[in-house]
Amino acid sequence: MLPAVYGDILRVDLKEKSIKTGKVPAEVLRNYIGGRGLCTKILYDEVSPDTDPLSPRNLLIFATGPFAGTSVPCSSRFAVAAKSPLTELWACADCGGTWGQELRFAGYDAVVFSEKAIKPVYVYIDDKNVEIRSAEHVWGQDTYKTSEILQRETDKKAVVACIGQAGENLVKFASIVSDGLHARVAGRAGLGTVMGSKNLKAIVVKGTRKPSVADERRLEISVKEILQKIMNSPVSTRLRNYGTSGVVETAETLGDLPIMNWRLRHWEKAEKISGEIMANTILVGRYYCGKCVIGCGRVVKVSNGKYGNVYGAGPEYETVAALGSLCLVDDLEAIAKANEMCNRYGVDTITMGSLVAFTMECFEKKLISAKDVGFTVEWGDARALIELINLTSERKGFGAFLAEGVSRVAQIVGHAAEEFAIHVKGLELPMHDPRCYSSLAIGYATANRGACHLEAFSHDVERFVTIPELGYEKPLDPSTPESKGELVAKMQNLMYVLDSLPICKFACILDGVPLMKLVDCFNAITGWELTLQDLLTIGERIFNLARLFNVRCGISRKDDTIPCRILTNPGENQDRAVNLPYLGKMLHDYYKARGWSEDGIPTLGTLERLSIQNLP
Amino acid sequence: MLPAVYGDILRVDLKEKSIKTGKVPAEVLRNYIGGRGLCTKILYDEVSPDTDPLSPRNLLIFATGPFAGTSVPCSSRFAVAAKSPLTELWACADCGGTWGQELRFAGYDAVVFSEKAIKPVYVYIDDKNVEIRSAEHVWGQDTYKTSEILQRETDKKAVVACIGQAGENLVKFASIVSDGLHARVAGRAGLGTVMGSKNLKAIVVKGTRKPSVADERRLEISVKEILQKIMNSPVSTRLRNYGTSGVVETAETLGDLPIMNWRLRHWEKAEKISGEIMANTILVGRYYCGKCVIGCGRVVKVSNGKYGNVYGAGPEYETVAALGSLCLVDDLEAIAKANEMCNRYGVDTITMGSLVAFTMECFEKKLISAKDVGFTVEWGDARALIELINLTSERKGFGAFLAEGVSRVAQIVGHAAEEFAIHVKGLELPMHDPRCYSSLAIGYATANRGACHLEAFSHDVERFVTIPELGYEKPLDPSTPESKGELVAKMQNLMYVLDSLPICKFACILDGVPLMKLVDCFNAITGWELTLQDLLTIGERIFNLARLFNVRCGISRKDDTIPCRILTNPGENQDRAVNLPYLGKMLHDYYKARGWSEDGIPTLGTLERLSIQNLP
Repeated sequence: MLPAVYGDILRVDLKEKSIKTGKVPAEVLRNYIGGRGLCTKILYDEVSPDTDPLSPRNLLIFATGPFAGTSVPCSSRFAVAAKSPLTELWACADCGGTWGQELRFAGYDAVVFSEKAIKPVYVYIDDKNVEIRSAEHVWGQDTYKTSEILQRETDKKAVVACIGQAGENLVKFASIVSDGLHARVAGRAGLGTVMGSKNLKAIVVKGTRKPSVADERRLEISVKEILQKIMNSPVSTRLRNYGTSGVVETAETLGDLPIMNWRLRHWEKAEKISGEIMANTILVGRYYCGKCVIGCGRVVKVSNGKYGNVYGAGPEYETVAALGSLCLVDDLEAIAKANEMCNRYGVDTITMGSLVAFTMECFEKKLISAKDVGFTVEWGDARALIELINLTSERKGFGAFLAEGVSRVAQIVGHAAEEFAIHVKGLELPMHDPRCYSSLAIGYATANRGACHLEAFSHDVERFVTIPELGYEKPLDPSTPESKGELVAKMQNLMYVLDSLPICKFACILDGVPLMKLVDCFNAITGWELTLQDLLTIGERIFNLARLFNVRCGISRKDDTIPCRILTNPGENQDRAVNLPYLGKMLHDYYKARGWSEDGIPTLGTLERLSIQNLP
Repeated sequence: MLPAVYGDILRVDLKEKSIKTGKVPAEVLRNYIGGRGLCTKILYDEVSPDTDPLSPRNLLIFATGPFAGTSVPCSSRFAVAAKSPLTELWACADCGGTWGQELRFAGYDAVVFSEKAIKPVYVYIDDKNVEIRSAEHVWGQDTYKTSEILQRETDKKAVVACIGQAGENLVKFASIVSDGLHARVAGRAGLGTVMGSKNLKAIVVKGTRKPSVADERRLEISVKEILQKIMNSPVSTRLRNYGTSGVVETAETLGDLPIMNWRLRHWEKAEKISGEIMANTILVGRYYCGKCVIGCGRVVKVSNGKYGNVYGAGPEYETVAALGSLCLVDDLEAIAKANEMCNRYGVDTITMGSLVAFTMECFEKKLISAKDVGFTVEWGDARALIELINLTSERKGFGAFLAEGVSRVAQIVGHAAEEFAIHVKGLELPMHDPRCYSSLAIGYATANRGACHLEAFSHDVERFVTIPELGYEKPLDPSTPESKGELVAKMQNLMYVLDSLPICKFACILDGVPLMKLVDCFNAITGWELTLQDLLTIGERIFNLARLFNVRCGISRKDDTIPCRILTNPGENQDRAVNLPYLGKMLHDYYKARGWSEDGIPTLGTLERLSIQNLP
């Protein structure tokens, strides 16, 4: 094997203020690539399962991979990982924007933060130096302002990844926001909370170096083909025109859009929050992540609206659904405002929306009162939505309670509320409905970070996407459990590769980029000669290692389930045939496909096959 | 409506030593009959949901019904109810033998014990008196000896229902044993524990009165027809010849027999513990409950066996499976000994066997060691089985821990053990496998006392029983979820009627007694004119009231599930097509059939229809 052309790693001890640079061993890169894979390897090796996520002993790991900063389209991405304060399990969030490529321009593939700074700090990384600087002057600022101030005092072209007040206040689902008001977010599972617990306000990067590529000419050829595929795809055009929320109406029609905390299956107002309406009203621009040619990012503007001004990143599909249909809020300006607030405070919009919907259902069912909250929380009340985001992010009043996430809040409210606490392993469900796509049930049940649609991204393969390299030459039937266990296992392996290279899922999967082109890019950059199967095995290895981290935390089959509302309730105003997910069968097929025991534990044979040595 | 010909109730305050007699209002009898129905009504009205089950505020309610003591075949039964110390929910256990009819001969239909005696007592009830007597001389004695001693000091024909040392020691699943060494047991959910917590060692009854029957001649005609039906049934003959464990081999072949803590699907040694082998080896006689003409009860004898002597009640199917196949113990003499020990100590054999199997799996998986237990606990080790029964019943050493039941023990052992803790709502599963009969999955998930096959008794309707009155004119397909939700709801309603009349399920269901004959008997005895539908509505009312008790304790759909091992694991050595229960769909159908919300809560409309007034 050739030596690695990448793998520079920074290790920052925030307590000692020590900074070490090093090289990730080529063997680790060969087995885990970078991004998510590298994050997972470090987390597994260096964070013991009994670590309190908010203690200095947790690590906060940022990693990008060999694609970032190169000419590969849609590749400026990075992964952040830690033990999650929300789920107390393995957590990894992936983010677009420009921070990922900027880190490589500065000469690094990964940064690992250990221990805790005594006072608030930020870290400034450029070509020449790594500095730990005081962040006391930006502590208490929101993410947009923090980004602006830190750019001013470092380099106006520097890219800032930072936390807002929610991360500082240890709200359990705080996010890490980069690219200022364009807000690209590592949102899920509270990685911003871990950052807050380390008194780390921001990581500011600015670089000028060009990442190494072993064979530029070879790369150029593949990149060209990928670009053509993406640019010619009608999906790209739709995403560019209407953003991800262009699917709202289709999702509503199919029964994929969660409405009223997953109770309703139809909502005549879905149109009002759609990407088409956004394009015709508040949209003022598009945002492209580094090397992106799609541009699904929205830039929106509201001046003197009912809820004040909005300017910057607009809500994507998950946010529109979580803050909109899930709460029956049908005012797009309110959603745009709420989205901006979540971005500024730095909280995950999916968890935040789920909490508000949950609170609304508690209120309807008289499990909490206006006295508890300080005001009424009726379904569809945009003012309540906005006020709950304020209270939660600032951990004030009733918000201090919501700041713990749906699972813990439900435990406190009591049995009746646990019934409609919609989460898996403590992570609130994203905005796609397993009663519409069977594979989502098994995907949510087995995703390592809790309910996540991005770890498998399988549902589109049930409807319109084909992936011939994995044997999916025509779309599957979304209503049956047949072959879905295997589908999800295969897709998870693939997604773990994409998040390690890294490259955008939308670009690759929705636009039908041939997987061989990615392999070509990988070999051109690294100079290695891996096959598609080699890469998929790496994805499988990373997935299993993340599972092993969770197994050490106590996870097994008993936790691989989805909320009973989704398992047994077809919805209050559904008019289609009931399509409740047949989870037991799919889980069995899944374990078989994974080579796990029926208890959901990777077998020794499977671990040997994957060359995973450090057993729990 | 005519005045009630029954409904005499005794209320015993064990603290004040006060005894009150009274009449159950005719309206209550009309709406709840007696037995389980009356128990449930009293429990719901008088025990608040936050009651600590082992506090004096819990009630212990014994009730029989209008059939007991009459000429109706197989009718000498009684129900015992309390809030369970094992599940902390509604619990009712039903028992055959002769105690039920004897209570009616003494002039009572029900006895309610409240508060707690300062010192151990027993209560002696005869035609003329009710006395609270000291039981200090029998405290510490096993149930067989207690029965013998108390008969000697009251009336040699008196019938004793008592607890053994396990109930005294507050083992959470202590049983109430009647009929001395013939051991008829109210076994499940720890009603003997509640008895122990009240310092109540025994209730001794002796009566001579004949229960009132409104129309003797009319009763005689129906009784004759029922008797013929039962006596001519080949099922009766098999039960008489081989007892309930005559089905062991069939169950193993079909995949119904739980083996090795529900892991294996085949076991070549099943034959060794079958009713046929029992009949050819240790069987020395049969036992008939009061008015029984079947005689499934076994009397067995082992002299100078490997495990000592055995004489008296032999193990029934549930016991043979729980103490045998579930633990891979294939020595019938050992099982007979273990069964007698459970009877003498007064512990539930199903929970006890489940605990031993659970411990064996913990031992295999190195979650507990020989040092923890005091000895090795290998699969199939009969000595370990027997020693664990001793330790648990006496709450000594490791047994003090097992005395809490599988659910709590698993919580203490940790996550890995919770994976194979096989219970629903804290009650260990009985010995029929939902992967063989789909309806068992929904039956276990929704039974009010936790995993129970007797609350629905639906699985035989999937195989060979027909109940034309409920619309089941031919057996159903056990492998599909179709119509099983409705089946279980209907069967639960019917079973709640049978347990309220009371009458034996084997007699009625397996022998195909026309339900109209039961209605005839009921009307002949009471002088009322109820229809079959009236009775089924009563069953539905009782079931809903028990559910409401549980809803007040926090139960909802989230609790209506079965262990993941059963939901997703087809078993380690299965060779049939996978038949994992499709619980979500069945639960949805069930709630619909019940008129409950999708959260599993009876709707106001349903409660109104059932004239249930006291809402939680």
